[in-house]
Amino acid sequence: MKNYKIVLEYDGTKYNGWQKQGNTKNTIEYKFSEILKKMTGKNTEIFASGRTDSGVHAKGQVANFKIDTDMSEEEVLKYINTYLPDDIRVLSCIEVDERFHSRLNAKKKTYMYRISKGKPSVFDRKYVYLTEFHLDTEKMREGAKYFLGKHDFKSFCTKQKMKKSTVREIYSLDIEEKNNEIDIIICGSGFLYNMVRIVSGTLLAVGKGEIKPCEIPDIIAAENREKAGETLPPQGLMLLSVEY
Amino acid sequence: MKNYKIVLEYDGTKYNGWQKQGNTKNTIEYKFSEILKKMTGKNTEIFASGRTDSGVHAKGQVANFKIDTDMSEEEVLKYINTYLPDDIRVLSCIEVDERFHSRLNAKKKTYMYRISKGKPSVFDRKYVYLTEFHLDTEKMREGAKYFLGKHDFKSFCTKQKMKKSTVREIYSLDIEEKNNEIDIIICGSGFLYNMVRIVSGTLLAVGKGEIKPCEIPDIIAAENREKAGETLPPQGLMLLSVEY
Repeated sequence: MKNYKIVLEYDGTKYNGWQKQGNTKNTIEYKFSEILKKMTGKNTEIFASGRTDSGVHAKGQVANFKIDTDMSEEEVLKYINTYLPDDIRVLSCIEVDERFHSRLNAKKKTYMYRISKGKPSVFDRKYVYLTEFHLDTEKMREGAKYFLGKHDFKSFCTKQKMKKSTVREIYSLDIEEKNNEIDIIICGSGFLYNMVRIVSGTLLAVGKGEIKPCEIPDIIAAENREKAGETLPPQGLMLLSVEY
Repeated sequence: MKNYKIVLEYDGTKYNGWQKQGNTKNTIEYKFSEILKKMTGKNTEIFASGRTDSGVHAKGQVANFKIDTDMSEEEVLKYINTYLPDDIRVLSCIEVDERFHSRLNAKKKTYMYRISKGKPSVFDRKYVYLTEFHLDTEKMREGAKYFLGKHDFKSFCTKQKMKKSTVREIYSLDIEEKNNEIDIIICGSGFLYNMVRIVSGTLLAVGKGEIKPCEIPDIIAAENREKAGETLPPQGLMLLSVEY
């Protein structure tokens, strides 16, 4: 068995995310499992670095799968891309150590959340969140600093049944302004369920003046989802890269 | 009656162009005429600087229409944008002299044709033309120079019944290379039917080595469509701006 690591991108607009509980076949994972089955004749599990939600996009998602094949890395890549729909694409494919696991070995992930101030260009409409409010980016930058470092991010997580650790480390959190857009770029050891969208919603509230930058430490310390800002919608979110 | 000049953008993917002969209502012009009828209660003609083809995009199309209204420019813009589908958007709206006509008064138009070398990013897939060939951009630049100036561009026009002049002036023709993409940016006094797509197809043939740069003057002089390169598909074409 060979273990392949792929980097892939997708326009998540039409999909119910990477993996969906239940019956829907409209997931990115399902598209891959069908192709790998066609290629090998066997059911093959594909593991992503994380399960992006319904409507979330990726420019640098990483996944791995184990198959028995004589094809070269290049041939595997071409085979998969031939059968993928045109809104999903494998960018690279390499054989890796059999112990490599895209989720368990991920060291660092970077996400971007795009906020459009005023109606976005029609060419960006599926990839940004629209706000009509004036946002104070200096205040957003001030608030962003408080997220850096290791914290319990329970306040920034949609409740799940699992009782795993909610401690994560944020390495950088940048607010970039260009034309009519504000991009929130966050890099961390990993992210809880909906965490990037809630952090972004909290920084949006800071930009609007609803939350003061200096209140962020208290919101983190509260370990209470209700203290943080709203969960921004998925279409503004893009998984940029995963590092190992 | 007030004469309004609007600048608009659209993702042409789903439309049968600006205006279609025949019965289809799936045109950009039709979307506007429905909204102007709703606004004024009257059938109102809207004139574009040019009729972009089925599948062609625009970032800076210009159009004008005459209506009787008490609304301000800003209100007209908002009204129209409220009812437009999300892949068409008015960027600006100003009242102009009653004699202004978006097509007849246009002095300069700029188009971009995007060629992707190898499979494009999924986020660009609807806006580029894909080629797997190696393209020699220096040769393309050499060939581009021969298009500059005033010429009869009959060789670069899909035959139409009209017997109007086929002389046009090209002010600039730039070949820009970035990452995995080559953009052809052409600015001229006006363009014949399919002209930008045929000029781009001819420069593509130059890049592939099928046509030598120095053969371009002969192709122009031939005044024969068969001598020029292919008509590239519409999705790579974008109307960038119109000047008056």
